[in-house]
Amino acid sequence: MTIKAGSSVIKLSTKGNDEVVDLTPDVDRIVGEFGLREGVVTVFVDGSTAAVTTIEYEPGLVADVQGFLRNLAPAGDWHHNETWGDGNGHSHIKAGLIGPSLTIPVIAGKMTLGTWQQIVYIDSDIKARSRRVIVQLTGETE
Amino acid sequence: MTIKAGSSVIKLSTKGNDEVVDLTPDVDRIVGEFGLREGVVTVFVDGSTAAVTTIEYEPGLVADVQGFLRNLAPAGDWHHNETWGDGNGHSHIKAGLIGPSLTIPVIAGKMTLGTWQQIVYIDSDIKARSRRVIVQLTGETE
Amino acid sequence: MTIKAGSSVIKLSTKGNDEVVDLTPDVDRIVGEFGLREGVVTVFVDGSTAAVTTIEYEPGLVADVQGFLRNLAPAGDWHHNETWGDGNGHSHIKAGLIGPSLTIPVIAGKMTLGTWQQIVYIDSDIKARSRRVIVQLTGETE
Repeated sequence: MTIKAGSSVIKLSTKGNDEVVDLTPDVDRIVGEFGLREGVVTVFVDGSTAAVTTIEYEPGLVADVQGFLRNLAPAGDWHHNETWGDGNGHSHIKAGLIGPSLTIPVIAGKMTLGTWQQIVYIDSDIKARSRRVIVQLTGETE
Repeated sequence: MTIKAGSSVIKLSTKGNDEVVDLTPDVDRIVGEFGLREGVVTVFVDGSTAAVTTIEYEPGLVADVQGFLRNLAPAGDWHHNETWGDGNGHSHIKAGLIGPSLTIPVIAGKMTLGTWQQIVYIDSDIKARSRRVIVQLTGETE
Repeated sequence: MTIKAGSSVIKLSTKGNDEVVDLTPDVDRIVGEFGLREGVVTVFVDGSTAAVTTIEYEPGLVADVQGFLRNLAPAGDWHHNETWGDGNGHSHIKAGLIGPSLTIPVIAGKMTLGTWQQIVYIDSDIKARSRRVIVQLTGETE
């Protein structure tokens, strides 16, 4: 079998303040459309105030993640806010700590996620934003 | 040279409570068996209460990591616990922050880890679990 | 098109104490020299007291990241320090939490970074060190 590389983009409009979006259905669809059988999918946020990771996507845990992040890096007097006056220094801190990239293996055409494990996008900015999540695929195709 | 993609699974039984397991020997063996010369290895946990990263694997630092994580997200009244009653809301928070995936370059048949840098699995759940770590390899083989 | 895999090394001398270095120009140059058109770049630190992530690289936010990390895991009585007497237990904690690897998609020859998103190396050790950052590339070339 030959190896191919390709990519797709998910467009998102979110309200910020640690909004959590489940990207799993979109990434699943992209893996299927590409026909990836054995390889990896990289999910990447092209911005510095949002991040990707995996959690169990259910409302209680989403509220826990939001409360945890707000406590970890609260809004306030960050130096970044003096630079731009945009008040989102804490957004950058949270996103940089979680990180913008996630790489997931694909075996026999399916991502190797656990049953209660979803790919989530966390928008920690302080106002509504439109952003892109890039989904890159490398591996053997059908 | 041609590029190949393949994968292997490491099975783990751990006790939770931030147990730290050194995965380096297993991943090293898998790289060797696959014959990967130049490429990347992705190590991925298929669950949302465990994570992977690198640390210097020595008992003092393992205790430090455990103490740090317990202080960062203590057991307690997390909303997730109301949803399922399983009491592991804090486990999810810790695992989501560290993240489930790690990608390591391979050059001349060896992972580019530092001398005091080991690949570790951190099981932050609150009870013993059996889980899989997926090791995906992409690159030039012998 | 055929898929290739290759790698390059960035050599860094840093002073530690959460020094932040913008790696974007170096990684950009390596992507161009390799001729990568569609694929992924993995940036990996081969040590356990430094990490990579993305932030907006500007002096105010750099100061914020440094203040945040020092507060999150302060220098002090870590068990690791009893093992080696090297006093950098907190350096390991910070680096392990942020993580040593970052994977960035490349589309049409360019990394898919946002305008205010730079690849940064954070050296959290407590003394000056020389280290290597490995840049691995996999994908279609020109």
